[in-house]
Amino acid sequence: MKETVQKLKEHQKQRLAYQHALGMLSYDSQTAAPKMSYVELQDTFAVLNDALYQITASPELKPMLEEILAHEDEVDHQTVREAQELYKNIERIQSIPKDEYLAYQNLQSQSEHIWANAKENNDYDAFAPVLEEIIGYERRFAKCYKPDMDPYNVMLDQYEEGLTTEILDSYFDAIRKNLVPLIQKIQKKAPFRSDFAFRSYPIYLQKEFSDYLMDVLTIDKNYCAIGETVHPFTTNFHKHDVRITTHYDENRFTSNLFSVIHEGGHALYELHTGDELMGSILATGTSMGVHESQSRFFENMIGRSKAFIHLIFPKMKSLFPEQLKDVTEEEVYRFVNQSAPSLIRIEADELTYSLHILIRYELEKRLIGGTLSVKDLPGEWNRLYREYLGVDVPSNAQGVLQDVHWAGGSFGYFPSYSIGSAYAAQIYASMEKDLNIEDTIEKGDLSPIVSWLTERIYRFGSLIKPKEVIQNCCHTEFDPRFYIDYLTKKYSALYGIDD
Amino acid sequence: MKETVQKLKEHQKQRLAYQHALGMLSYDSQTAAPKMSYVELQDTFAVLNDALYQITASPELKPMLEEILAHEDEVDHQTVREAQELYKNIERIQSIPKDEYLAYQNLQSQSEHIWANAKENNDYDAFAPVLEEIIGYERRFAKCYKPDMDPYNVMLDQYEEGLTTEILDSYFDAIRKNLVPLIQKIQKKAPFRSDFAFRSYPIYLQKEFSDYLMDVLTIDKNYCAIGETVHPFTTNFHKHDVRITTHYDENRFTSNLFSVIHEGGHALYELHTGDELMGSILATGTSMGVHESQSRFFENMIGRSKAFIHLIFPKMKSLFPEQLKDVTEEEVYRFVNQSAPSLIRIEADELTYSLHILIRYELEKRLIGGTLSVKDLPGEWNRLYREYLGVDVPSNAQGVLQDVHWAGGSFGYFPSYSIGSAYAAQIYASMEKDLNIEDTIEKGDLSPIVSWLTERIYRFGSLIKPKEVIQNCCHTEFDPRFYIDYLTKKYSALYGIDD
Repeated sequence: MKETVQKLKEHQKQRLAYQHALGMLSYDSQTAAPKMSYVELQDTFAVLNDALYQITASPELKPMLEEILAHEDEVDHQTVREAQELYKNIERIQSIPKDEYLAYQNLQSQSEHIWANAKENNDYDAFAPVLEEIIGYERRFAKCYKPDMDPYNVMLDQYEEGLTTEILDSYFDAIRKNLVPLIQKIQKKAPFRSDFAFRSYPIYLQKEFSDYLMDVLTIDKNYCAIGETVHPFTTNFHKHDVRITTHYDENRFTSNLFSVIHEGGHALYELHTGDELMGSILATGTSMGVHESQSRFFENMIGRSKAFIHLIFPKMKSLFPEQLKDVTEEEVYRFVNQSAPSLIRIEADELTYSLHILIRYELEKRLIGGTLSVKDLPGEWNRLYREYLGVDVPSNAQGVLQDVHWAGGSFGYFPSYSIGSAYAAQIYASMEKDLNIEDTIEKGDLSPIVSWLTERIYRFGSLIKPKEVIQNCCHTEFDPRFYIDYLTKKYSALYGIDD
Repeated sequence: MKETVQKLKEHQKQRLAYQHALGMLSYDSQTAAPKMSYVELQDTFAVLNDALYQITASPELKPMLEEILAHEDEVDHQTVREAQELYKNIERIQSIPKDEYLAYQNLQSQSEHIWANAKENNDYDAFAPVLEEIIGYERRFAKCYKPDMDPYNVMLDQYEEGLTTEILDSYFDAIRKNLVPLIQKIQKKAPFRSDFAFRSYPIYLQKEFSDYLMDVLTIDKNYCAIGETVHPFTTNFHKHDVRITTHYDENRFTSNLFSVIHEGGHALYELHTGDELMGSILATGTSMGVHESQSRFFENMIGRSKAFIHLIFPKMKSLFPEQLKDVTEEEVYRFVNQSAPSLIRIEADELTYSLHILIRYELEKRLIGGTLSVKDLPGEWNRLYREYLGVDVPSNAQGVLQDVHWAGGSFGYFPSYSIGSAYAAQIYASMEKDLNIEDTIEKGDLSPIVSWLTERIYRFGSLIKPKEVIQNCCHTEFDPRFYIDYLTKKYSALYGIDD
């Protein structure tokens, strides 16, 4: 058994090395690589993906895992969890014919470029056949993996274990019923002052601001670096190498501000996984939903709080004295919290955000379920934006083509964005019992907050599952009412709405 | 045979994919990675290096290559050259015991960090044992590979085929005899004006200047990107992905200026290798010396010419109007060409540069030959700097620890820097017969120069060897007199020296 466990650790080392290399090439291609280098990059991806496939689907692996799982009492808990995760993984891979698996990887490595071009040219028809193909693969793979389960539930479970359409239908029902009326009331109120936010904020000064924000977030730059992309994201190779990206817009400094804080939340999770997990498949956040709970916790609950704006306002004034000379702290606070229905998910405010997700949820459920065709997708997209958000979609580029996710085959991913926000609200409510959060922020040292989260979430990585995360933090089950209450309270106060 | 050739191409594809991944990880670790991430990076390197070793030393490869080389008339010339290069490579690798080979790779991946720390702390003793070990490996490997050859000649040949101590002894003899007296005469002349060069040139504006310089050099940014490192370098993954790096010093804008031009010269070579070579082991510059001839051709012969300063001066004035308000074009020209013996190779001027190389050449020849011990190296270093350059070395950090090369095991590499400069002078003399170079530069379009070089050098990649490069360009053999004449003429004119 000792030898088997040793082999299991060696297997994970091999696996991680290839994932590191592939991740690095991908990160670089999005941040530093020359624009047209992606063509030949596909050849390298193909070779390394094939090698990684050989490793993850190696015939010796399954019996090894079965041996460990049959003798759980003889090995430590971490090893059992590693074997479980690897077993799940190999079951899935082996359920799919290898040729199809690699062909799909190939397609995925091109589909994002096809999507990007289609978006740039507002040409849905150029993307539709690829999307059709992707949906086909995703549906077939789900069927191969779990023939008895609804394919969309298979996909949901992949990003957030245990999540089902049953849970989400009731979750989004509550969201819609509570938030749509509130949004409509806010629509009738006067908008907050916003002119100063669109003044010119030189990018080299914004970069200095990013550096400052990382310090405020207690991010150790020895282990976390920042890059630039159109769409910010976080990626991690191991806990000592986490990358976040941000987006600089000279005439919209809040774009960078909240990108750094959002991605910083993701980074903190990865940076604080336990040392004992290093090299293990478990050394990473446990699910998309829990990950998103951390990015949204920092972006919205911390970053958009009065206390946080109070904390960073002096630095803002010192970097941008001219741009902010006639602006008060309160005006910044109001601006970063203003709510207005809009077209683009990633620019949506905290309150309307989950309606963007709801729309994607309804659509992808039907696409996978076969009750909506790729051809009819843009029409349905536009219809729902009108219905839930009251906005007209002027072009597919600003509509159905705005997100990369479907181009990458990430069906079932979107809901975790909303669920993450809901987790965050529940976690916040629980943290407040132990800490005076606003007070902690105002003092300028966020480490008690990071420690609280490390203790209950971060250090466990994937050793614990989403349900246990909520249990650890809140000593109860997930309950979306915290999220609805939080939004209702915050936005009623902001806009002076009584009932 | 057709099948064997097919396999050969497939082999190169695999090889390049791993080299791409390893190169990417290394490039990233020097440009974008968080500072302390290199520790775990070694694990990934170890796994991928091992896999690359399996590929390059695979038992099927050698008979395949032998088959091709025994039937050269049945295959095209490119395939023959590929087989030759791969054969040379496998002969070398197989001559070394695998364990030693991988242990040395491991050592190398750490030695640069040990060197960097030693340099930072001016602590030669911390580096000496590693250097000792590296010299041991290098000497043993050379002996394994070619037992009958002088080990240092084996190393020289690796970077510049055909180069020997016999050639270099006479080459450097000529350099020393001709340049040392000239340098001494210049020492007695008044230095040029330099105050303006150390004013504050904001880095974000220097970055704009880099962009402009890449355009001037005709570098296509779709295929070449720029990064930042303390020591600039160029790396290429394939002809559609070349990376150069530069160094920004706010109070020394010429550091970036000449880094971009120097590395740009390397990049042009890689960007213009023939399309038919893509995916082949031959799709890269043929030797270090020839590569350096291109970087120095652009840095010195183009970049430090009157015509080039005239071309870029208006852009400089528009980016830095305050800093250059009292400065003339002629003063910039003189400043970038001023000569003064100094301590640091990479900051050396064009005239004294080869003496820095001469010192390294003499020392490494003796280190490898066993007539100089690692213990005595700093003393000898300092003695030679006094003798040839007339400068006193105040610390090992500014002396023997200044270069990374020995820490990476690159013995035999330094001479190619000087040989490259000498190639460049000879190539320039030949190009002038076809083109009015100064005139071409002044007109602001360097493409006739790049085309001339592409036609005779770049497009062939490693299909031709260094000797053929000089033959293609100059219709004769390498002759160092061109270099000595060029330097003598240029610097006599600059400093008004008659005889």
